[in-house]
Amino acid sequence: MQMTNGLSVLHLFCNAGRGLQPIEVRAAVARARATDTQVVAAELLGHKAEWCFMLLGVDQTPLFHFQRELRHAGVEIVGSYLSITEVSEYAPSLPPEMLKDRLYPILPPEGKPAFCFYPMSKSRVVGANWYLESFDRRRDMMYEHGKSGRAFAGKVVQLITASTGLDTHEWGVTLFAQDLKVVKDVVYTLRFDEASAKFGEFGDFWVGEVVDPDDLLLG
Amino acid sequence: MQMTNGLSVLHLFCNAGRGLQPIEVRAAVARARATDTQVVAAELLGHKAEWCFMLLGVDQTPLFHFQRELRHAGVEIVGSYLSITEVSEYAPSLPPEMLKDRLYPILPPEGKPAFCFYPMSKSRVVGANWYLESFDRRRDMMYEHGKSGRAFAGKVVQLITASTGLDTHEWGVTLFAQDLKVVKDVVYTLRFDEASAKFGEFGDFWVGEVVDPDDLLLG
Amino acid sequence: MQMTNGLSVLHLFCNAGRGLQPIEVRAAVARARATDTQVVAAELLGHKAEWCFMLLGVDQTPLFHFQRELRHAGVEIVGSYLSITEVSEYAPSLPPEMLKDRLYPILPPEGKPAFCFYPMSKSRVVGANWYLESFDRRRDMMYEHGKSGRAFAGKVVQLITASTGLDTHEWGVTLFAQDLKVVKDVVYTLRFDEASAKFGEFGDFWVGEVVDPDDLLLG
Amino acid sequence: MQMTNGLSVLHLFCNAGRGLQPIEVRAAVARARATDTQVVAAELLGHKAEWCFMLLGVDQTPLFHFQRELRHAGVEIVGSYLSITEVSEYAPSLPPEMLKDRLYPILPPEGKPAFCFYPMSKSRVVGANWYLESFDRRRDMMYEHGKSGRAFAGKVVQLITASTGLDTHEWGVTLFAQDLKVVKDVVYTLRFDEASAKFGEFGDFWVGEVVDPDDLLLG
Amino acid sequence: MQMTNGLSVLHLFCNAGRGLQPIEVRAAVARARATDTQVVAAELLGHKAEWCFMLLGVDQTPLFHFQRELRHAGVEIVGSYLSITEVSEYAPSLPPEMLKDRLYPILPPEGKPAFCFYPMSKSRVVGANWYLESFDRRRDMMYEHGKSGRAFAGKVVQLITASTGLDTHEWGVTLFAQDLKVVKDVVYTLRFDEASAKFGEFGDFWVGEVVDPDDLLLG
Repeated sequence: MQMTNGLSVLHLFCNAGRGLQPIEVRAAVARARATDTQVVAAELLGHKAEWCFMLLGVDQTPLFHFQRELRHAGVEIVGSYLSITEVSEYAPSLPPEMLKDRLYPILPPEGKPAFCFYPMSKSRVVGANWYLESFDRRRDMMYEHGKSGRAFAGKVVQLITASTGLDTHEWGVTLFAQDLKVVKDVVYTLRFDEASAKFGEFGDFWVGEVVDPDDLLLG
Repeated sequence: MQMTNGLSVLHLFCNAGRGLQPIEVRAAVARARATDTQVVAAELLGHKAEWCFMLLGVDQTPLFHFQRELRHAGVEIVGSYLSITEVSEYAPSLPPEMLKDRLYPILPPEGKPAFCFYPMSKSRVVGANWYLESFDRRRDMMYEHGKSGRAFAGKVVQLITASTGLDTHEWGVTLFAQDLKVVKDVVYTLRFDEASAKFGEFGDFWVGEVVDPDDLLLG
Repeated sequence: MQMTNGLSVLHLFCNAGRGLQPIEVRAAVARARATDTQVVAAELLGHKAEWCFMLLGVDQTPLFHFQRELRHAGVEIVGSYLSITEVSEYAPSLPPEMLKDRLYPILPPEGKPAFCFYPMSKSRVVGANWYLESFDRRRDMMYEHGKSGRAFAGKVVQLITASTGLDTHEWGVTLFAQDLKVVKDVVYTLRFDEASAKFGEFGDFWVGEVVDPDDLLLG
Repeated sequence: MQMTNGLSVLHLFCNAGRGLQPIEVRAAVARARATDTQVVAAELLGHKAEWCFMLLGVDQTPLFHFQRELRHAGVEIVGSYLSITEVSEYAPSLPPEMLKDRLYPILPPEGKPAFCFYPMSKSRVVGANWYLESFDRRRDMMYEHGKSGRAFAGKVVQLITASTGLDTHEWGVTLFAQDLKVVKDVVYTLRFDEASAKFGEFGDFWVGEVVDPDDLLLG
Repeated sequence: MQMTNGLSVLHLFCNAGRGLQPIEVRAAVARARATDTQVVAAELLGHKAEWCFMLLGVDQTPLFHFQRELRHAGVEIVGSYLSITEVSEYAPSLPPEMLKDRLYPILPPEGKPAFCFYPMSKSRVVGANWYLESFDRRRDMMYEHGKSGRAFAGKVVQLITASTGLDTHEWGVTLFAQDLKVVKDVVYTLRFDEASAKFGEFGDFWVGEVVDPDDLLLG
């Protein structure tokens, strides 16, 4: 199964299980990379999971193989998020180079070790229903939101991927930042934008540090 | 126990347990099929489950046997959904052939490898209570919703089954699509219809790829 | 500990654990029955549990013994519901025979193999607070609700038991029906009554088939 | 760590784990009692837990020791609630004897075998925010609530303990009653009081029978 | 990965797993302290966890190492909270010494054995949306809130750390108090402030007693 436009993105949140085989984990990463699949790895802080593997690729077959090989290597996959890259409907007229960056991002960026992933949706409650707002209202709110985000340009790189129909929320947000304070500052600042303040619903936050998969402490 | 009209539909979401016996899993599929029960299988992406088995049949006895045989074969059933086929009350005057397709669907369709299942209900909150709307209002909203869906004809096949009183939500939605982007596009697009925007409540999304049960990677 | 009026009702939802001893399970059923406790058994569809044992009795001591004996027999009790039989405050002037049926029901009924249990409460949210409605309004709504239910007379037998202060919800509903479609039809139809549409809050649905405990497939 | 006024109250909800050592459990109860700690025990109905141990004492050290000794004796502590005794701010001018009963209760009462514990909070939702009501309004509602409760005097003994900042809810309610019907009747009746109907939010209900710890069936 | 301003704060809530190695746990504490990381330890009451380790440091590397070493020492990390120290935006003009206390606190304080941690957010529901209030309104409410808190000066020390984008809630609150009653009194009293009554949303409460890590009862 393949994507005809853009990439499928799979975040896997993992713990060491019994009989973890670090060599097999590294071999799974190498095999995925050999099939045009990007693999970003992070060590996470806290109890929810020890590592995140973020995979991006046109073809889903390596994703199925990778998660299977992790399990066979004694890894417990305790969380995950499935999404696809997209060009926002509110920004369709980007220059070709930027469109390509959105659909085919190259990750991780340099010099941004802090890693953060969280899923989000737009609320549909009575009195704050994003999906009953007009396109123009939504575009204006997203424009304000984008502007707030651009104040952090250079300090943070974000990838927003679409997941309506694919996972619990409607979008996944992956941040790469200079440090944890930048992560906090950007998410806190943007929460005052109407798009977030009134309509944003957030899932779990998975936070840690980007690590070369070959340097990942396993076992 | 049998259905007098339509089929019972059981989605089972599964992981390999200790001592998984792939041969016994395939034998359970074969036995179910030998009793007029359709079995659709899918490999899933993410942590929630590795496989889905979707069973459809007039008789519930093979469903009881199948789930029991899976457990005996070392399969852990970690999620499930019970529903029945129905003709929508808003579309009772369909031609006989279409009525038959609704009550006795033949699955999976050709050329639609992307698989997605999610349960849904209509909200009953103050200010957005579907069950306090008139029949005519509900029929009009469902008509708009059906029209939005038909824009994806040929790219996606959907089966909506009834589960009020049978499981956590009121309907189950099973989608077969060309790829993951089509799944996202159809669910995202329909979310703007009033029936979904204002009244739709959604459960977990189980997403992957349809696989012939004989080719399913087990163990 | 005993009831002075009516029966205590305990639903136990169970899975086979390691070292399940079917003979001991059957012996526990026999011992409970020998102490004036009714035991209804059902096989369930889906992942939540394999079996339900529903016990009804004046004395709670056999209930304590039964659940203890199940655990000792290798059964995992994964869900439960505690309630007591009652005469509805909205129908106090029933003829004696009907009052007795409510307080001392004999179960299961003949020819109704489909089994369904779910707990429910009346909402107390702002704008839909059952407990702030007058007795007359509540009685009228319950009367309408009862009338909707009577349209299914002969196809379904229901037992509504009280659980405020005893378990997560305020009532337990146990249905015995001709088939799964009848279960769906009755619960779906009644959801449009104001008592349900506006005020009904529902828990998990446990659905399957009534089985003689001696025929229950164990292990 | 000690209380300077009143008692700390710890409810522990427990299951038998592997290698349960009943003798060690009884020894832990004896040691707690030897340090001026009251221990009330109950057998519970349903799947959530087999036993409750309710400890009351000025000193928290025996509480830490007791829970540790339970774990070492093969007991799994699967639920708990931490609270402290208090004199309600709405009833500060009680006679000294009653104040003492509130701060230093002696439990369990005679002839009340039915046991029930549940935590509760006062809601702070828009339109029903207890904490935005005036003291006088709150006092009046609590007075009505107390009056409803006094109709059950002699049939039920209740202890309300404070837990804001200590556990998930703001109060813990422990009931000792003649039988399960009395528990249901009192909680159901009081639910119509404005303090409960409009503002009450309830957690899990843990229900069973008071047992002398020495008679508790262990293993 | 390092903080350029302030400290990262990691609360780890832990249980003894199989094969717990107390010596290794103490060694992990010693190693963390040797790298300029403060380690506060507490024994907890109830079922959620036996111990809390609270780590504070400029550098995150010792945090990653510590949680990894705990796992290797047979500790199960069952809960956690990640946050960073900050100077409140509503109190930016504090004297330098107080600013330093907020960004670089020295813990635990003397004579305050009662320990309490809970996370909190400001609500964004319709009718009570903190993020749609003006800065001046928010500052006034926070000023009232701070004033209420200062009435407990000397009895309680609190540390409020920021976690928007880092964990499930927006702030973490760590309290050190004279006894459990002070914890209850301060949290209960402040709940009537508009900032809490109308806008406060609270997570789990983790409560116990501060212990020197070397005296922590392990195993």
